[in-house]
Amino acid sequence: MRHNTLLWLLAFVPVVFAAQQSNPDAHTALFALSVLAIVPLAALLSHATESVAAKTGDSVGGLLNATLGNLTELVIALTALRAGQYVLVKASLAGAIVTNTLFMLGASLLLGGLKYHEQEYNRVSARMQASLLFLATVALLIPSAVAQADSAAGAAFNQKLSLGLSVLLIVAYALGMVFSLKTHPEAFASAEAGDAGHAPWPMGLSLATLGGVTVLVALVSEIFVESVQQAAETLGMTPAFVGFIVVALVGGAAEMVSAFSAARKNRLDLSVGIALGSASQIALFVAPVLVLVSYVIGPSPMGLQFWPGAVVMMFLATMTASMVTNDGRSAWFVGVLLLMVYAIFAMTLYLLPPRVA
Amino acid sequence: MRHNTLLWLLAFVPVVFAAQQSNPDAHTALFALSVLAIVPLAALLSHATESVAAKTGDSVGGLLNATLGNLTELVIALTALRAGQYVLVKASLAGAIVTNTLFMLGASLLLGGLKYHEQEYNRVSARMQASLLFLATVALLIPSAVAQADSAAGAAFNQKLSLGLSVLLIVAYALGMVFSLKTHPEAFASAEAGDAGHAPWPMGLSLATLGGVTVLVALVSEIFVESVQQAAETLGMTPAFVGFIVVALVGGAAEMVSAFSAARKNRLDLSVGIALGSASQIALFVAPVLVLVSYVIGPSPMGLQFWPGAVVMMFLATMTASMVTNDGRSAWFVGVLLLMVYAIFAMTLYLLPPRVA
Amino acid sequence: MRHNTLLWLLAFVPVVFAAQQSNPDAHTALFALSVLAIVPLAALLSHATESVAAKTGDSVGGLLNATLGNLTELVIALTALRAGQYVLVKASLAGAIVTNTLFMLGASLLLGGLKYHEQEYNRVSARMQASLLFLATVALLIPSAVAQADSAAGAAFNQKLSLGLSVLLIVAYALGMVFSLKTHPEAFASAEAGDAGHAPWPMGLSLATLGGVTVLVALVSEIFVESVQQAAETLGMTPAFVGFIVVALVGGAAEMVSAFSAARKNRLDLSVGIALGSASQIALFVAPVLVLVSYVIGPSPMGLQFWPGAVVMMFLATMTASMVTNDGRSAWFVGVLLLMVYAIFAMTLYLLPPRVA
Repeated sequence: MRHNTLLWLLAFVPVVFAAQQSNPDAHTALFALSVLAIVPLAALLSHATESVAAKTGDSVGGLLNATLGNLTELVIALTALRAGQYVLVKASLAGAIVTNTLFMLGASLLLGGLKYHEQEYNRVSARMQASLLFLATVALLIPSAVAQADSAAGAAFNQKLSLGLSVLLIVAYALGMVFSLKTHPEAFASAEAGDAGHAPWPMGLSLATLGGVTVLVALVSEIFVESVQQAAETLGMTPAFVGFIVVALVGGAAEMVSAFSAARKNRLDLSVGIALGSASQIALFVAPVLVLVSYVIGPSPMGLQFWPGAVVMMFLATMTASMVTNDGRSAWFVGVLLLMVYAIFAMTLYLLPPRVA
Repeated sequence: MRHNTLLWLLAFVPVVFAAQQSNPDAHTALFALSVLAIVPLAALLSHATESVAAKTGDSVGGLLNATLGNLTELVIALTALRAGQYVLVKASLAGAIVTNTLFMLGASLLLGGLKYHEQEYNRVSARMQASLLFLATVALLIPSAVAQADSAAGAAFNQKLSLGLSVLLIVAYALGMVFSLKTHPEAFASAEAGDAGHAPWPMGLSLATLGGVTVLVALVSEIFVESVQQAAETLGMTPAFVGFIVVALVGGAAEMVSAFSAARKNRLDLSVGIALGSASQIALFVAPVLVLVSYVIGPSPMGLQFWPGAVVMMFLATMTASMVTNDGRSAWFVGVLLLMVYAIFAMTLYLLPPRVA
Repeated sequence: MRHNTLLWLLAFVPVVFAAQQSNPDAHTALFALSVLAIVPLAALLSHATESVAAKTGDSVGGLLNATLGNLTELVIALTALRAGQYVLVKASLAGAIVTNTLFMLGASLLLGGLKYHEQEYNRVSARMQASLLFLATVALLIPSAVAQADSAAGAAFNQKLSLGLSVLLIVAYALGMVFSLKTHPEAFASAEAGDAGHAPWPMGLSLATLGGVTVLVALVSEIFVESVQQAAETLGMTPAFVGFIVVALVGGAAEMVSAFSAARKNRLDLSVGIALGSASQIALFVAPVLVLVSYVIGPSPMGLQFWPGAVVMMFLATMTASMVTNDGRSAWFVGVLLLMVYAIFAMTLYLLPPRVA
């Protein structure tokens, strides 16, 4: 049934293109339509990636999942990058990390906990993802902690440091994959249990879907990125709230459906793996790749420096995840705690006077 | 014997009222007398609350303990609130959180550890309280991390955010009670073991004591709040030190007697429950309630923004408690560690030049 | 073989003295030669200390190791202190803490993990050192968090606070030794397993070596301290990078050899003990002793206030160590994580524009 709902949403893809042709200035409507169109496309992308991964064996499949798992976020961010909207790119990256760590994980634990009195999961795997997230947060925190200067020397320093840190994070991410897929797969055993019960598609269909849907996501993203700021203003939302919360929820919608459904089936390993794995993938792979790619397709190189408030939120989200996943057990209140921290962030961003962020 | 000492201290209640009539300007003496009068009153309040709780069954009793357990702190803070002394209110709230987390817990673990080689306690319960404290610290930290502006927009933002966060914290506190009293009481089993061996009073006496003593505490608090600043100056103590350390120690004196006595009886669950439970109650219930009440009885709405130094101290105290309660075991040195962190804070506040805080 | 290498390096001791006589202005050469000369001397000092400790029984031996274990760092820092180079002293202290916590521990876990699939160690001991480090970080963090003022009142406050905190840290360190050597030695059992297989020297030889080599280290340190800044400039390294990374690696070289060799022999308790024990010794003993000694031999009293970036790095290093040592198990990727955090710090310091630090 939830598949039918998602497929039904695909009808919004042609609608959004038609709407843009006829009413290019109806920003709020275009924004709403592009959101509705991205969600089913993201679900298709996610399913196609998993199908290819299931056919290609554990290692290649793991690699594919690890690089294409956040394809939607990557395509949206690349579109915003090409448009030079670096503030939106960074807000959506930080927002995706925080949303996956707090909202996706928290809602999974809450939904699972409302059905089961107590749930267990593989804490080794959860701690590994939390440690990688912590590493990424250190990389994002140190530059702003060390240099506040906005001088010319500071700008050159920031650019060189961003480049170096990006390479470092990608190396750490690659080594993390070697660790979990090659040398110590047994420690991550039950987290590899597959894709929440979908039947994999045939290879040809999967690859065609991957290619075609990626193009569609890119096209819809363009409408989304163009309309989001104007729509936000009309709807009375701050740009920080839109980038951090709205874009992150849209980009992660497909994964959330999988994570929540796994939690309701008492397969918490899968939920925790999707939520934290997705967050660490964005922090250690998507974000540094965007920094490197900005040298090629952006109007100017993008740095790895984030707005201090976003760094604090990422740091606190990582600490919360690290505290909570300490013993591999969960009950509904653990989910509430994570959601409460998320609610504090969302409320702060929603109320924030526009000029501050 | 320790009860007789406390009852004997009750003699200071009439003395402080008499002293205020005859020497309204002897601030240092009035300050000392009001401190000596509040301690036995707090002990009576605490015993009356526990007696009512014991008679009304687990759930209602837990609820009573959870709302009236810090009645002394609440009444002192309300008195200061009505007098518009928001700096004192906030210092005493932050101080109570830090003092309960570090001093009450640390001294309990040290006193217990000097008698027993190693002690164990229910780490689930301790971690739950530490997580709630962490949540509250995030709520207090985010506003100052995000907006430094003191502009008009910043003030409006702060006020709306304080209101929203206060509601959020009270909801989290209520859900935490549902979790520990209703849905998962077994996880908190031995922490519910009762009140360190007092015999409960009859209901009538308990309710009369609750009512009468609350009024007395309110009256003595008024003398205390009026005299504390002048006395501090005379004694060479900074206002930050008085609010943070002296008021917190006075307000928590009765609970400390219970927590220390339980630790000496190897009932560490009770000590940890009193110390961390009291800290999280102040952070998630007393503080937000005061924000809401300030709209009714204060000269102007009070915000949830604290002095950055106080936020850092609360954050570090929470982290220390979280590290220390990680494995549910304790020896004397764990108590020393907590007390040392407290000593660092107390020393810093004592030496702080007056204008800074 | 590695001993022969170290002894061979001793030839650089006379060479550096000769070079200083003939070419007192060849700063880069003198810097390189003094580095090469300090490493074997540090190894001799470390071996002599361990030999004396082995002969004097557990308690006195533990005390000796705990006070003389970082003699090289202490002598270098004392030389810089007498020369009034407080920035170098502080950078080298912060650098030693961070380098021992992240690089020495990380490389040990990586080297051990490349040989053994999974390694275990005594987590009680590791957590104790991590807690002491955390305490020291709180002491270094609070003064800067509380007072930013550079006024006269602020300076007096800083000086009194530094003195008080130094005494507090030394007391905590002493109590920690009472705990681990006297009251609860059984909890630290396997960490006391001795010195990675060296045969202890006879007492007379050990004492003579201790005395003589300390004098040599002091003399070479003088050349090192005089040449380091100029050499750094010539080599294009920032002063922050030299103090933090180069001096720390030189001062800890001997201990690193021991820690790495123990890890390769699957004696991870020893590696973790050396790395974290050394870090907490510098934070709780060497640093406060230098503050106290600065009143006697320095041109003016030295405070315990560090550059904010250094405080953040110490804090993050402590948190990383605390997260990683949580369960007493290790595999190669844990080492990579620690080394990555270290690489982030080193890269930041290397690129930092000179004026900022």
